[in-house]
Formats: sequence, C-alpha cells, structure tokens
Amino acid sequence: MSRVVKLAVIPGDGIGPEVIAEAEKVLDAVTADSDVTFDKTRFSLGAGRFLETGDTLTDDDLAAISAHDAILLGAVGGTPGDPRLKNANIERGLLLKLRFTLDHYVNLRPSKLFPGAPGPLADPGEVDFVVVREGTEGPYVGNGGAIRVGTPQEVANETSVNTAFGVERVVRYAFDLAERRRRKLTLVHKTNVLVHAGAIWQRIVNEVAAEHPDVTVDYLHVDAATIFLVTDPSRFDVIVTDNLFGDILTDLAGAVTGGIGLAASGNINPDGAFPSMFEPVHGSAPDIAGQQKADPTAAILSIALLLDHLGFAAESARVSAAVEADIAARSGARTTAEIGSAITARL
Amino acid sequence: MSRVVKLAVIPGDGIGPEVIAEAEKVLDAVTADSDVTFDKTRFSLGAGRFLETGDTLTDDDLAAISAHDAILLGAVGGTPGDPRLKNANIERGLLLKLRFTLDHYVNLRPSKLFPGAPGPLADPGEVDFVVVREGTEGPYVGNGGAIRVGTPQEVANETSVNTAFGVERVVRYAFDLAERRRRKLTLVHKTNVLVHAGAIWQRIVNEVAAEHPDVTVDYLHVDAATIFLVTDPSRFDVIVTDNLFGDILTDLAGAVTGGIGLAASGNINPDGAFPSMFEPVHGSAPDIAGQQKADPTAAILSIALLLDHLGFAAESARVSAAVEADIAARSGARTTAEIGSAITARL
Ligand SMILES: CC(C)[C@H](C(=O)O)[C@@H](O)C(=O)O
Ligand SMILES: CC(C)[C@H](C(=O)O)[C@@H](O)C(=O)O
Repeated sequence: MSRVVKLAVIPGDGIGPEVIAEAEKVLDAVTADSDVTFDKTRFSLGAGRFLETGDTLTDDDLAAISAHDAILLGAVGGTPGDPRLKNANIERGLLLKLRFTLDHYVNLRPSKLFPGAPGPLADPGEVDFVVVREGTEGPYVGNGGAIRVGTPQEVANETSVNTAFGVERVVRYAFDLAERRRRKLTLVHKTNVLVHAGAIWQRIVNEVAAEHPDVTVDYLHVDAATIFLVTDPSRFDVIVTDNLFGDILTDLAGAVTGGIGLAASGNINPDGAFPSMFEPVHGSAPDIAGQQKADPTAAILSIALLLDHLGFAAESARVSAAVEADIAARSGARTTAEIGSAITARL
Repeated sequence: MSRVVKLAVIPGDGIGPEVIAEAEKVLDAVTADSDVTFDKTRFSLGAGRFLETGDTLTDDDLAAISAHDAILLGAVGGTPGDPRLKNANIERGLLLKLRFTLDHYVNLRPSKLFPGAPGPLADPGEVDFVVVREGTEGPYVGNGGAIRVGTPQEVANETSVNTAFGVERVVRYAFDLAERRRRKLTLVHKTNVLVHAGAIWQRIVNEVAAEHPDVTVDYLHVDAATIFLVTDPSRFDVIVTDNLFGDILTDLAGAVTGGIGLAASGNINPDGAFPSMFEPVHGSAPDIAGQQKADPTAAILSIALLLDHLGFAAESARVSAAVEADIAARSGARTTAEIGSAITARL
C-alpha cells in the first residue's frame, strides 16, 4: 500500500530557496525506499514575486495551495528598507495570511539543545521544551487602525482579540502534548496588566487542567519567562501562550538552543481541514542570500515536524537523529549544501 | 545654601521594606555631609494595606504623594494566588495607577554588566545600555474588555493605544540621552505585524532622527531584539520601545546583566509636573520576604538614579561607584543588611 502526499513548496526569498533545496534533499532521501511519495508543487511567492507581478497572495494561489496535504515554506521577505516594498508587507499579506486562512491555530516550536550545539549560555543544562503558540488570534489579528496619520494628533491602536473558542482549542492541544511528554505545562501571559486577555487564558487553562490532573500546571508572566529562559531553561516542558508572546519567546528560545539556524516550526491545523505548514523560525536574511552561508538545519528539522504530523513517525525520527549526529560532529565552516549533504548521508 | 527634598517612601510588600531599609541607609550616608536634606514621608501601601483596609490607592494617598519631590518604592504585590487578593490587582490599582497618574512617561532602565557580576552568558562582552520604555501608553492603558465572560462564547480584547504626543516625547528623551552616551539608538517594535502602532513609532523616530544626524539609528523587531540581548548585548546603547516590549526586554536585560537583583529603574516625568518614582525592577518576592535573603542592590542603584534625576550628580556617582566596588569584591552569601552596610561603607 503506497501513499502519495501532495506537498506545496514555497521556497520564498533570500536564503529560503537555499535551505529548502537541502530540506528537499533530506525529504527525498528519507522517503526513497519507503511507501510514501511526495508529489511536490512549487509556488513562487514572496517579495521577489511581488516585485515582478505586484501580487502577494491571490485567491487562486490560496485555492491551489489549499488543495495540498501539507506546505513547506523557506522564508519570505525582501531587503529591509527596499523602497519598492514600502507598501507590500509580505509578512502580513503572505505569511500571516496563510496562517490565518488555513487556520493554523497551533504554531508548534520545539526547542531542544542538541549535544554539541553552540549557545550563549554558560551552563544551560538539559533543554528540551516545546512552545505551543496560538496562531490565529491575539495581537496578530490585524484589528488596528489610526486616525490623523502623520500629524501630531495621530492616534494608532492595535487590538488583541482572544476568544474562548480560539484559546480552548490551542490549550487542549498543549495539554495533550504535555501528556505525551514530561507532563508539565506553563502558561505564559501578562495577566496582571492585560487583565481581560489574561483572564480568559487563565480561566481556560484552569478548566482544561481539571481534566488533566497528572499534568503539573504553572504560570509565568512573560517578562519573568524570559528570565527563566536564560537562567533555568530546563524547567520548561510545554509552554502555551498567545501569538505575540509566543513569537518573542521562541526567538529567544532559538537563541538559547543553538541559534535560530536550528529552530524549526509547524503551523498546524490539527483538525486537518487545511494543510499544515512547516517552516524554519528564521527569516529570509537577504544579506547572506545566495552565498551558501545559511544553515539549512532549521528547514531540515521542519521536515521532521512535517513527517511526524503526517504520521511518518519513523522517518521523522530518522531525520532528527541524523541532525543530532551532524550537530554533535560539527567542526569548522560548511556551505549550506555541505550541511544538507552531511545530514542526508547520516539518514 | 541648603536644599530640602521631600521624598515619599513606599516600602510596600514582601522584600520591599528590607531593600528600602538598605537604600535609605545609603541615601542617608551619601547626603550626610552634603547641603541636601531628604525629608521623608512613609506611605504604607500595597497588598498588606489592602488586606487591612480594603484600599489600594485613594485620592488622598495620591494627593499626598504628589506633594513630594520624588518617590522611592520598594515593591508591591501579595502572595500569588492569595484568595483574599483575588479582586485586588495591586499592580494595576497601585503601581500602574501611580505611573499613569503621575505621568511617568519615561520608564528608564539602565543595564550595565559590572565587572564581577554573575550572569548566565558565557561571553557577554561589555554591556552598558539603557532601555527607555514608554510608561503611559501602549498595551498598558487598560483599554480592554470582554463579553460573555466565563462562557464558551467569551471574547476578550485589549487595545494598545499609541499617540503621536506620547510617542514623540519619549522618543525625544531617548535621543537626548543617546547624545550624552555613545550616540546609538535602537527602536524596538514589531512593525511588520502591529502595522499601525509600529508605523507611528517608526515615523516619529525617523522625524526626530533628522534632528540628530550624529545619532546612529537602528531598528529591530522585538523577537530579534531578544536574540541580540543574549548573543550580542554590547551592540546596544539606547533602546527606545513601547510599554509592553520594554517590560519584557528589561527583565531579560536584567537577567543578562547580573540578575534582577541588580536592576534599577526610574519612572520619570521629565517635565517636573509630577514627582518621579524610583524602584527596583524586581517584585515583592513574598516567598523570601523577611528572611534577609533579598539583594538590596537594585534598590540602592535606584537611589543613584533618584540622585541623578534631582541634580545631585556627584552623590549619584558615589553610590554607583560604591555598588560597583561591592560587586567586584563579592564572595559568599550575605544578608540584605550586610550588603547594604558594605555598600554604605564604601561610599
Ligand atoms: C515574519 C513574522 C510575521 C513572523 C511572526 O511574527 O510570526 C516571524 O517572526 C515568526 O516568528 O514566524
Ligand atoms: C508589576 C508589573 C505591573 C510591572 C510592569 O509590567 O510594568 C513590572 O513587571 C515592571 O516591569 O515594573
């Protein structure tokens, strides 16, 4: 019995195509002698496409992408300050539009310090946690506006929207994940200041916690959480948090566990109504694009998340193990392709 | 010619009274043979007062505090989860109410890694920057609300409010500070997602930058800023940012520069219309209260900020130098009072 997975591939801008090439190398190799085939469609999207055509993400693009089983994305975004991109906002118009339209309500971001991985902390200890970041609500909804723009009387607002529906589903996902891990869940928010948004998160965590008596539940204000991420990161198992706090914590977590070059993520629609999307946490880094300087490991670990999500646990584990072995053996500078090939060789 | 400064002292809850006792010791000593006298009024405010009287901050309290030249605050807040404080919110009702009512639009938080200070980074380099955090706007305004509270249909919103008036005055302060320092200013925001709030900050920084051609201006997304705080903190000189991002960055910055036990802050009304308030960044830490375990250094460095703000630059420098010498000589555990006395002895 063989299975065909329709995969939409969006290499994107900057270093995106380079790291995606290595991720595909690994995906092809790990599935070569298995009974799954990845049927890939390439989508040319991002700042480059915008500059050529003026389009960011059309309805046709969305429909075509939605017809796939999963999405692999490199990175999107042009050179900061490029005047031609002034009104583009590739982030909102492409990346966030995909996350919102495809209802990626779980933004899954594992942080594991692999033996041998470099890192800024003198004594990190064992670090292995997952941030479950809400992906479709909070301050990311785009419910902002401004009046008297450009004048001394301007007022610019942004509204964070949090619904019981949206919070509950991601909190449930986080508890289920904690059950399969070390059974510790930390809610991160700022309940003492953002009292309404904080209260709904705290209430729902309390309610779902009652159904999971074996999961130890903890709460940290976001400011305190950043302290613990650098002084005691091994205290964390599963962190559940809102879209903006999750954005901040996962960049910091990436830095703490070997750098953003190793941080993978999944934008997941657990219901399966829409394809989930896997992407490195890093951006398009136009300053080093085309130079084979980028580390493709984050993109390759995103393949591991993709495989796991699709139910190919064994293949996923092989990719993770190959990455872990590669990191343990690292020495000296290698090109993007060299890292990809080395990991492929270890599969 | 002698000067009398009316100082409101709010020791607060938990470790607040212990660290304030040491801060006062230092203040008394450093002004002993100078021509300034601090005329202190003690205010009993915080969770303890709320539990006794049901009041958090009355109009009379506010009027009495406002009649002072400056405020020294320890820390406020009761034991987390204390059911009697369920509806108190000491943070919003007392601390934030003071900051907002007294128009503390500059929340000044220096981060300096003193030689010998402990820290989680393997190789921090020279770290010496100041975060200028906006103190009266942003997501802290309390413009939130919720409907259908407690039901599966709840919607809870929080609105960040940013005005040209509010952003411009704090940005001007930050540029003036940068002029007196290493002339580098970094705006931290999340302009790619919070497009309206981000745009007003970016616009005003650009406008004020044009008046300061000798200041190098940089921009970082808040997520990227947390990475640099742990991988390259010496790149920063002056950071200007909104209330919430400033809250997060300064806790992380405190951790990076020797821990939150050393981090001081000033809530400043530069116009002088209201008294400014000086406080350690840390909280009331009820778990270690009354045990002489707290480090009073953050409170003592807040005295240095207070003295500087009031124009006593020489006295301020003496306090900082005494702290620096104390940190360089640290070894073994000391009580709160021992640290305070050691610093006092070095004045
Ligand atoms: C590019 C940006 C919109 C995005 C985000 O803020 O979510 C990125 O920082 C991330 O974390 O994936
Ligand atoms: C206690 C809390 C309201 C406060 C804040 O968020 O500003 C604290 O974290 C701080 O940084 O002074």
